[in-house]
Amino acid sequence: MASNKRVVKRIKDEAERVREAIVDGRKPSMKFPLRSLANVRYNVKQGFLEMKGGRKERTLTVNTVKTFAQTLRMMALSKELIDTDDIATKREAYYVSKNWESARFNEQAESDAVMDDVEAFFRLNREQLGFIPEEKGGDVAGQLVVVDMDRETGRRLKIDCTKFGSGAYSIPISIEDLEFETNADFILVIETAGMFQRLVKHSYWKTANCILVSMGGVPTRACRRFIRRLADEKRLPVYVFVDGDPYGISNIYRTLKVGSGNAAHLNEFFCVPQARFLGITPQDIVTYKLPTHPLKDVDVKRAKDALKNDPFILHHKAWQDAIAQLVKMGVRAEQQALAKHGLNYVMEVYLPEKLKHPEQFLP
Amino acid sequence: MASNKRVVKRIKDEAERVREAIVDGRKPSMKFPLRSLANVRYNVKQGFLEMKGGRKERTLTVNTVKTFAQTLRMMALSKELIDTDDIATKREAYYVSKNWESARFNEQAESDAVMDDVEAFFRLNREQLGFIPEEKGGDVAGQLVVVDMDRETGRRLKIDCTKFGSGAYSIPISIEDLEFETNADFILVIETAGMFQRLVKHSYWKTANCILVSMGGVPTRACRRFIRRLADEKRLPVYVFVDGDPYGISNIYRTLKVGSGNAAHLNEFFCVPQARFLGITPQDIVTYKLPTHPLKDVDVKRAKDALKNDPFILHHKAWQDAIAQLVKMGVRAEQQALAKHGLNYVMEVYLPEKLKHPEQFLP
Repeated sequence: MASNKRVVKRIKDEAERVREAIVDGRKPSMKFPLRSLANVRYNVKQGFLEMKGGRKERTLTVNTVKTFAQTLRMMALSKELIDTDDIATKREAYYVSKNWESARFNEQAESDAVMDDVEAFFRLNREQLGFIPEEKGGDVAGQLVVVDMDRETGRRLKIDCTKFGSGAYSIPISIEDLEFETNADFILVIETAGMFQRLVKHSYWKTANCILVSMGGVPTRACRRFIRRLADEKRLPVYVFVDGDPYGISNIYRTLKVGSGNAAHLNEFFCVPQARFLGITPQDIVTYKLPTHPLKDVDVKRAKDALKNDPFILHHKAWQDAIAQLVKMGVRAEQQALAKHGLNYVMEVYLPEKLKHPEQFLP
Repeated sequence: MASNKRVVKRIKDEAERVREAIVDGRKPSMKFPLRSLANVRYNVKQGFLEMKGGRKERTLTVNTVKTFAQTLRMMALSKELIDTDDIATKREAYYVSKNWESARFNEQAESDAVMDDVEAFFRLNREQLGFIPEEKGGDVAGQLVVVDMDRETGRRLKIDCTKFGSGAYSIPISIEDLEFETNADFILVIETAGMFQRLVKHSYWKTANCILVSMGGVPTRACRRFIRRLADEKRLPVYVFVDGDPYGISNIYRTLKVGSGNAAHLNEFFCVPQARFLGITPQDIVTYKLPTHPLKDVDVKRAKDALKNDPFILHHKAWQDAIAQLVKMGVRAEQQALAKHGLNYVMEVYLPEKLKHPEQFLP
């Protein structure tokens, strides 16, 4: 693919630059963006937590020679992966290094850090470099055809997500090469597998002409990137249906929408800025008379942290009000709480009512 | 479905029995199997951890009236779910009870316990009663066609697991009604999503004519039940490829094969007695010169617990020897450690060599 060729060229250019410095008798150096929370701000226009300009320089000296060599070898491994159309997990990359003699890593934490540096250096995500995460996650059902490729025949494979019955399409670890065909009106992203299964069982995607995505808790990288690319390319709104508690709001929803603070060099690729919060909102708890649980200490702490420190929440008055309301009410409600009114109330009443007014969704 | 009718009949018969006792002026009672570890043994012939005969009786008295009523309502909910072809998660069932007036549950733990009692009472698994777990998990790729039903049209849906490209078929939460078509030689069950993705990327299922299943750690109920039904109906061997550490052996593999000690009333349905341990074995660490990590304290504790208390391990001398060898070596090896010899060594050398001698797999 063209993008792969570009990545290989950039790796080769950088390697060439280092080589020339050495040949000319100069000390080669590389500049990496600082990957720390202090180097992060909320980019309102682009819609994600982004790195500020801080950078660290790594110059080849006696003290840095090992890390410098490891960085170059990691780049070489990336080039090899792309050239051979292969992949490696972070853990596999660590084990591959066991053959790098004195450049071998002793702990996976070291190789993970160097991989993060390489990602940040090229401003690419790991998947574009041929590296894949250990975990996968994210299921899809509904009005969507995923176009993949049969690696052996080179033929296009059309995967119709309306044809899986009670099952679903499981998002692969790396989704960079997928294409999409859809006439859906929106993407409905769901926190729990149980709620997803209910909507699938009753073909809610047909009723509402939408694509259902199950996150199964905090979304994985692949799941976030899948939603992002799908939403971008098909210009689809993304509505997020999670529990009405500080975890659902500031961990799950916020991570999906603007990314996370400690991996800011990646948020550019993994955020879903078009995401909007369908519910459960604190107001829903009142409106729908939902059964609740008292907020736990950890919930209150999480809410107060968000109000004080989260650049995303700090930017949105509506979120500050909502979280303050939740803390004042002292309760939380799970998305399954709607079952109090009947198991299918969620499809027959709640979702249709909410979907009439997406403009009222929390940002 | 016929089996659903049978379940409804059993619920009605039981309710009728209780009703008659009341009408006759007798105290109705129900006998539930004891769901405790003390009431468990390893059934070697059937191949799972099973309940011994211990039972507790619940008679309707002033003290038990609430639980008794809740048990009957839970059975009624199950009947309703089956009659309407619907499902409810444990959490939804808890919220449904909010309308049961004085029989309502105050905590989900209470309703979960009653649901477990009902399962054990009928010797059925929750899914057969219309209840589904909160979590799903388990991905499938390879030589398998899953036959499901389009709930609206009633038409059969054939889901071809060779046609998912880099993605996979995600196992639904309830798999009781699925059917299977396959000419595969065996099922290869894999611990990590990363390893699964490698085998999928390189179409290993075609090379080896098999079905690949990713557990993503400890397998969910749906994943275990799926493998069990598929292996039973198609008489397929099941080979399990996990990390070479006490967690991979006694938590993941043992749970898949014989079930877990604290849910013995379910093991009958969720165990996979035909499972065999492909690797990583302690001997593999030596044979393939794998990079290792030292065993952590928790690993050693887990290994010693297994050697002392696990009825499955205590039955198999081969497992006692293997675990003792691991403890003596003081190390563990991850399945990715094979990458030391090259990323695709696992497909080109390790798996083919092992698969030549399945009779040597640990039991």
